[in-house]
Amino acid sequence: MTPTMARPGGRSAKVTAAVHRAVVELLAEGDPLTIPQVAARAGVNATSVYRRWGDVGALLADTALVRFGTSGDVPDTGSLRGDLHAWGTALVAEAARPEELALLRAAVAAGPADPGAPAGFESACSACLVGRSTQAEAIVAAAARRGEEAPTTTRVLDHLVAPVYFRALFGLPAPSVDVLVELLVERLVAPATAQAAPSALG
Amino acid sequence: MTPTMARPGGRSAKVTAAVHRAVVELLAEGDPLTIPQVAARAGVNATSVYRRWGDVGALLADTALVRFGTSGDVPDTGSLRGDLHAWGTALVAEAARPEELALLRAAVAAGPADPGAPAGFESACSACLVGRSTQAEAIVAAAARRGEEAPTTTRVLDHLVAPVYFRALFGLPAPSVDVLVELLVERLVAPATAQAAPSALG
Repeated sequence: MTPTMARPGGRSAKVTAAVHRAVVELLAEGDPLTIPQVAARAGVNATSVYRRWGDVGALLADTALVRFGTSGDVPDTGSLRGDLHAWGTALVAEAARPEELALLRAAVAAGPADPGAPAGFESACSACLVGRSTQAEAIVAAAARRGEEAPTTTRVLDHLVAPVYFRALFGLPAPSVDVLVELLVERLVAPATAQAAPSALG
Repeated sequence: MTPTMARPGGRSAKVTAAVHRAVVELLAEGDPLTIPQVAARAGVNATSVYRRWGDVGALLADTALVRFGTSGDVPDTGSLRGDLHAWGTALVAEAARPEELALLRAAVAAGPADPGAPAGFESACSACLVGRSTQAEAIVAAAARRGEEAPTTTRVLDHLVAPVYFRALFGLPAPSVDVLVELLVERLVAPATAQAAPSALG
């Protein structure tokens, strides 16, 4: 954001919100994303959009950061199992929403940042995961503070976030949220027990 | 494939191969996929491409099926652990190849088949997974025949295929192939033991 446009709550904030909204709407409708189309949908000048974001890649990344970058409150149920269950349920719901799913698809299509990207440029890909990684870390850290045996953050990403996003992105038939999350969480929290139990997923 | 173009090994097969090659090349170069561009790259008439495939979605799905649909030989090492390790290693290598990764990205971007798609139309998304699902089934079935306790196919997809594709698609720094596959496989085969072992991933 350039200094002249940084007035929060003012015209600039309204333009930013309208542009972000235009991006997710166009993506959810399956339209190809171009700056002129985004500008037209948002009711702003294309020049302003070019000046503020530069190109479609940066605009997509910024939108993803706004949608997925929040690492605010995580569930605090008093147990790792409870926290992962509540968080996983929210994750499944998020990945099923048309706008969020369209944004995830577009981010994956755009790919990670080019080696030639300007320093500090964050791709839409990594913007989609930054909030979830921070949240997974917070859940794992809370469990450790309570003295619970906790998986690593990487393990939560590999075995809870990855299957949820994988199923959503490839359009696999999702089991009910409760079944999916319960099983994934059981496997992360107590894999030996979950192994012995009959699988409702398989 | 229409009957008049189905002569294997003939001119039609050469055209098909050239068109599939053009698709993966263009995707790997980051170019937007259009029928005229594909035709130009393949050195064939755009009309032929339209007649044979109809649209870009169907062409992408057909290319994905050729690249990812093969469910041929799976490893036969004599143990579930050995088979999953060999298969997982191949999966990681495949997802790291620029052409295969570009194809996965494009398939995810295109999304699953529209509810209004013609009967029998398979999306690029599902084309990317059909071969891997069949292979996972074969590995699990072989383990069962040997009397080994085996995970369900869904569990292999959720906890081996999903993390590998998730990391590749979101451009996460990949640990060494050996570390990744060893840990993922250990977790699938003997989660309780893997849980106790120090994690090189986390």
